[in-house]
Amino acid sequence: MAEPLRVGVAGLGTIGSALVRLLGRRRADLAVRAGREITLVAVSDLSRRDRGLDLDGAVFYDDARSLARGDIDVFVELIGGAEGAAYDAARIALSRGKPLITANKAMIAAHGLELAGLAEANGAALAFEAAVAGGIPVIKTLREGLAGNAVRRVSGILNGTCNYILSRMETDGLPFDVCLADAQRLGYAEADPTFDVGGFDTAHKLAILASLAFGAKIDADAVSIEGIQTITLADLAAADELGYRIKLLGVAERTQKGVEQRVHPTMVAKSEPLAQTMGVLNAVTIDGDAIGALTLVGAGAGGDPTASAVAADIADIARGDYGPAFGRPVAALEDAERVPMQRHEGGYYVRLAVVDRPGSMASIATRMGERKISLEAIMQKRPAKGAPSSDIAPVVLITHATTETSIREALTLAVADGVVKEKPQVIRIERA
Amino acid sequence: MAEPLRVGVAGLGTIGSALVRLLGRRRADLAVRAGREITLVAVSDLSRRDRGLDLDGAVFYDDARSLARGDIDVFVELIGGAEGAAYDAARIALSRGKPLITANKAMIAAHGLELAGLAEANGAALAFEAAVAGGIPVIKTLREGLAGNAVRRVSGILNGTCNYILSRMETDGLPFDVCLADAQRLGYAEADPTFDVGGFDTAHKLAILASLAFGAKIDADAVSIEGIQTITLADLAAADELGYRIKLLGVAERTQKGVEQRVHPTMVAKSEPLAQTMGVLNAVTIDGDAIGALTLVGAGAGGDPTASAVAADIADIARGDYGPAFGRPVAALEDAERVPMQRHEGGYYVRLAVVDRPGSMASIATRMGERKISLEAIMQKRPAKGAPSSDIAPVVLITHATTETSIREALTLAVADGVVKEKPQVIRIERA
Repeated sequence: MAEPLRVGVAGLGTIGSALVRLLGRRRADLAVRAGREITLVAVSDLSRRDRGLDLDGAVFYDDARSLARGDIDVFVELIGGAEGAAYDAARIALSRGKPLITANKAMIAAHGLELAGLAEANGAALAFEAAVAGGIPVIKTLREGLAGNAVRRVSGILNGTCNYILSRMETDGLPFDVCLADAQRLGYAEADPTFDVGGFDTAHKLAILASLAFGAKIDADAVSIEGIQTITLADLAAADELGYRIKLLGVAERTQKGVEQRVHPTMVAKSEPLAQTMGVLNAVTIDGDAIGALTLVGAGAGGDPTASAVAADIADIARGDYGPAFGRPVAALEDAERVPMQRHEGGYYVRLAVVDRPGSMASIATRMGERKISLEAIMQKRPAKGAPSSDIAPVVLITHATTETSIREALTLAVADGVVKEKPQVIRIERA
Repeated sequence: MAEPLRVGVAGLGTIGSALVRLLGRRRADLAVRAGREITLVAVSDLSRRDRGLDLDGAVFYDDARSLARGDIDVFVELIGGAEGAAYDAARIALSRGKPLITANKAMIAAHGLELAGLAEANGAALAFEAAVAGGIPVIKTLREGLAGNAVRRVSGILNGTCNYILSRMETDGLPFDVCLADAQRLGYAEADPTFDVGGFDTAHKLAILASLAFGAKIDADAVSIEGIQTITLADLAAADELGYRIKLLGVAERTQKGVEQRVHPTMVAKSEPLAQTMGVLNAVTIDGDAIGALTLVGAGAGGDPTASAVAADIADIARGDYGPAFGRPVAALEDAERVPMQRHEGGYYVRLAVVDRPGSMASIATRMGERKISLEAIMQKRPAKGAPSSDIAPVVLITHATTETSIREALTLAVADGVVKEKPQVIRIERA
């Protein structure tokens, strides 16, 4: 058997602690699988408080940078944050030719290309399975499992907090604010939830998947981002009636124009696996030219599932599996043409507060027609019995494929015409 | 860049032809990913008829054995069959230290352990991603992606023919025979469908998954097998009413008694991803101690999806990723204790033709009680209006967890008591 692999773990939070326990619990089997012992020889954290972990024999550092310079064979970064100690320590480890394993989506989204370059230059592995969709092995699937495919699209539920909130809203008929508060109470959402519900966390993960899927340089700034804060129970009810569920998707798509990367609430047909993914689960569907659609569903966060992903990276590195970080050498990654959101083509769900007088619908239909938008469905409900009388009628439109620019222009004009009150609600429809 | 990897492909049927096209179409990207050209240098098939393939520069052999002895770096076996040319050629290739890639589930189920030993002894890789669930990278997921997990259970829809038939029966309300005939007409089922609908194909695949999941020697003879031929529309209707779908599952489970391997029609809660997998798709759920439940859904058969799996194996081997075939060295694979079906514990669905006279149900309930079987639900329907009068009442029972032996004994006694006519229908319930 080969020499033991000496592992250093930076950050003993939820994931780091789960990883230390996993490496202890699975020690014998991991050694058999990897062909060598995997030994935790050093850790680092800002606090030395007792976490109930067996750290016997492991050197304790207060600074991740010192750990990265220490006597270790692989550096596992579980601190988080795009900059600071995580980024410093990552560069120190790679510069010294030490493999870097990280769960840090923010850092990979921001600096993945630079770190991959550093890894290549120093002959060290860079692995980040845990950075996207927690325990789901989607990085390995894109990098290795689908190596023979031209990937056309990757779409996924990549944030459990948003999926929990949307699932609760739908299942229990409760508004966004109430479900968000519950998510915070249950520990699924941070005190400042903007990073999750605003779609930014999903965007980081999407940018990483897009790079792997298309062999393109990571381009996190190109992601168009919308959150779920504006989704109402009226939208969920209309979606249900039309055969859809509303999910916050990250979608990366290669079209003839280039690469689209977008995060937004999305109408997904109920028959699709992504629509059936409820609660805090994550799911990713990959469309490849040979495989067709492949969907992976599982735990997207949490200590144990994320530690599972880190452990798989450690095992790969222990048995010497050193593929390029993004599936291709850095020099081979292309600068993909960015397709701005305005040029997106697809179907749209539009919910309008229409002024209830003769000619309103005709006026809206005319504005749609001018932009060559054709309608697949119009849904106007009689007000519920006993509802206060109103001069506003809620109307839902489903369009055939059109462009973002066309739909936005048509709606701006309809509002200017005075036939639509309030800001129109616009939700993109994603078809399989 | 390293020397090209010289590939020989044995068998130019649906999968072989799709693979040759894929290697041509994705040549440039595969070279970038693998760090070397992947070149088709030789093929073999019994027939030299024109398949519209670009085989320029490839040596053509009439015998796979000759190809395995030829001037190639990796031998791809796509002939099929547990014995004969496939098995001979596989052994020849491995004995010469040449990596073997195969889509042959029958051969791996029967001879996987021997072939893995041969591979180890000769320092050659053995890869068989395509042997289970077509394009779905479930072998890689078990072997590498979940390396840090103790797997408790693997359950899957592993035969698209059966899933197509059950889906059609449910969706269109058509009986088994009609749906089977349609499957045959569409090319999903063979002229002799026994291998598929009898559960044997699923059993081969399950035995392979069980070995990877539990680090156990492959033990295909230990799989308990039941097919879908006895499933009626009455069962599907009752399942629907009770919140289940009926799926042919392969289930491998590690319990305190040992390893259970079983293939049978199964009641799966509609909320489970496996229940939502319709038509010819395959799906596998893996329960691990760190990851929880992970589900993969995709195309389980067909030329392109299966070629996608083979291409991934080729790319792995091209870049030098040579893990042990079953995730652990052969010497480390354990002889798992077989748990016979009689000792299976779980809930049961039972459909009975009960003689419609006072005391019948009491008699059945007594037999159940004697075996300590407690009932979760009893469903007896009034006969449909206008139905011919009958002295038989259809009754459906759902039991709490019990053993296979208990339920079989109780039902045998109930039949002997004369209160149940016809053979009782028994379907196991699988809980998440």
